[in-house]
Amino acid sequence: MRNIEHIGIAVKDLEAANKTYRAILGSEHYKTEAVESEGVITSFFKIGESKIELLAATNADSPIAKFLEKRGEGIHHIAFNVADIEKEISRLQGEGFTLLNETPKPGADNKIVAFMHPKNGHGVLVELCQERPEN
Amino acid sequence: MRNIEHIGIAVKDLEAANKTYRAILGSEHYKTEAVESEGVITSFFKIGESKIELLAATNADSPIAKFLEKRGEGIHHIAFNVADIEKEISRLQGEGFTLLNETPKPGADNKIVAFMHPKNGHGVLVELCQERPEN
Repeated sequence: MRNIEHIGIAVKDLEAANKTYRAILGSEHYKTEAVESEGVITSFFKIGESKIELLAATNADSPIAKFLEKRGEGIHHIAFNVADIEKEISRLQGEGFTLLNETPKPGADNKIVAFMHPKNGHGVLVELCQERPEN
Repeated sequence: MRNIEHIGIAVKDLEAANKTYRAILGSEHYKTEAVESEGVITSFFKIGESKIELLAATNADSPIAKFLEKRGEGIHHIAFNVADIEKEISRLQGEGFTLLNETPKPGADNKIVAFMHPKNGHGVLVELCQERPEN
């Protein structure tokens, strides 16, 4: 694990949350991106070497819709930058962790990603992120 | 706001969580520190320019004990590094945010800190951190 790539925050209203985090961080979000396979629309802010990713649901089956219903707004996951995601998946499996994605899947912001089960992380949903290789 | 200083994670058993995060991050925690005024014992891991702070309660009145009872284990707060905490407190109050600490208080890891009400941050408890000035 190299560094914190981003913190994902589940919000109900992306526009309202953009205003709030612009005021907190003192900077503008640099990107809005839909991830249709996940039923989410995301907004990114830079902060040091990391990012804040705001996540709103685009349909009722979205994992973010379910999270909001169960927990309300708040921090949804921590994502760590890794150099070689397949190697990290194998390493974590070797440590006894359960990966929700045994092979990486496309994520927002030009990444390939894999999630670990939150039961493995004392209630924290951990995401591994690697820059998408150019083909 | 300069960067993510740390992510605070509330855990029931600090020793078990230390083992888990050592396995996830692939590195050892570098410090254990009690903050008696808060009723917490903390453990820190470095990750890039940020840290992971594990927080366990040392008594039943601790904010962490209450959080665990209400929400279970998981991410408790995000802390941002600031150059001048009093200036940031004033700036955020000017933006209409409610600070739980209007003047900074001592925190773990040689910091002075102030928290913002989570209602201000779409459910996220935001901490401002400044290196403790030398007197």
